[in-house]
Amino acid sequence: MEGPLEFLRNIKSVAIATVDNNRPEVRIVDVMLHEDDKLYFLIARGKPYYKQLKANPEISIVAMDDNYVTVRVKGKIEFVDNSFLDKMFDENPVMNHIYPGDTREILEAFCLPKGTGEVFNLSTNTPKRERFAFGGETVSEPGYRITDKCIACGICKDSCPTGAINEGDVYSIESSLCLECGNCYEKCPNDAIEGPFEF
Amino acid sequence: MEGPLEFLRNIKSVAIATVDNNRPEVRIVDVMLHEDDKLYFLIARGKPYYKQLKANPEISIVAMDDNYVTVRVKGKIEFVDNSFLDKMFDENPVMNHIYPGDTREILEAFCLPKGTGEVFNLSTNTPKRERFAFGGETVSEPGYRITDKCIACGICKDSCPTGAINEGDVYSIESSLCLECGNCYEKCPNDAIEGPFEF
Repeated sequence: MEGPLEFLRNIKSVAIATVDNNRPEVRIVDVMLHEDDKLYFLIARGKPYYKQLKANPEISIVAMDDNYVTVRVKGKIEFVDNSFLDKMFDENPVMNHIYPGDTREILEAFCLPKGTGEVFNLSTNTPKRERFAFGGETVSEPGYRITDKCIACGICKDSCPTGAINEGDVYSIESSLCLECGNCYEKCPNDAIEGPFEF
Repeated sequence: MEGPLEFLRNIKSVAIATVDNNRPEVRIVDVMLHEDDKLYFLIARGKPYYKQLKANPEISIVAMDDNYVTVRVKGKIEFVDNSFLDKMFDENPVMNHIYPGDTREILEAFCLPKGTGEVFNLSTNTPKRERFAFGGETVSEPGYRITDKCIACGICKDSCPTGAINEGDVYSIESSLCLECGNCYEKCPNDAIEGPFEF
């Protein structure tokens, strides 16, 4: 598979969530450019989510392809110089049809320069989950972890829907297979499991 | 086209946004059921967005089909009795594979009983936008409106990328064609345009 940011650019139409007065808002937005490990977007100043981004630059992105591969990424956006506009129109010719002539004056450009994310691949027989980071952010630990408090009773292993738990003196979770459902966490008789931790 | 809620059930994998401590979070979730004008979902108690929904039940949903028809809807979810679980597994047999046997005990059911939304159809030659509501909510007015302060100068009409503005003693916006970009709003010399208003 291509890298996760290239994946989003190739899917092009992704869902971008913002916050508006403590309420979530989400809409489909096209990824206009993937360059220097950053994602670039266009936005019209008159759209409600322009105001949302000015008030709170945090976004969360998700997209899934036809093979049920999902990429999620989040971070803070930055508005960038409108010199990017022409390039984005060149690389996305349909934009000349949607905003003909001078009407593109209402558009501004922003980018996601860094962030953390997750690839969740349901196209294989067993789900595969992997976290990533870009732009200098750190890859976070998986969602659930078994600590030294484990008494190796095996209850967690029996409760796992995907067989993601391996035996041992201290049991361990194969994070790439973990659905992060929390069954092991709830069933553990010794509070030996920590989580959930978001990426 | 089928109704917008049926559209979401047919697409099945939709993006659901929530708020976590004033930050947006979005992920792909399957619509498990569309019944009595409500949308039903499953959630594992161990997922971070379970906590998010318990703290703030507001969600925003978006999905787009292969023809670039987009449906957005938002409202407050309600957790429902787990008697819905068996029905949802029956209607979505793949769930028996993902959560085999007793592992489904970690799941809970919730529904979106009412909300407001928008259909945005980019599959036609000219974009078509239409708002809707369900469960007793009221359909809101379009995003931008021209008021009586209009002096019929025509500047707004020239600035509109989609030709959505009609002439008249007071000009008017054909909301189904409006991109809600805000160009008319910015260019109007007499502050005669109001907006943007979200659905």
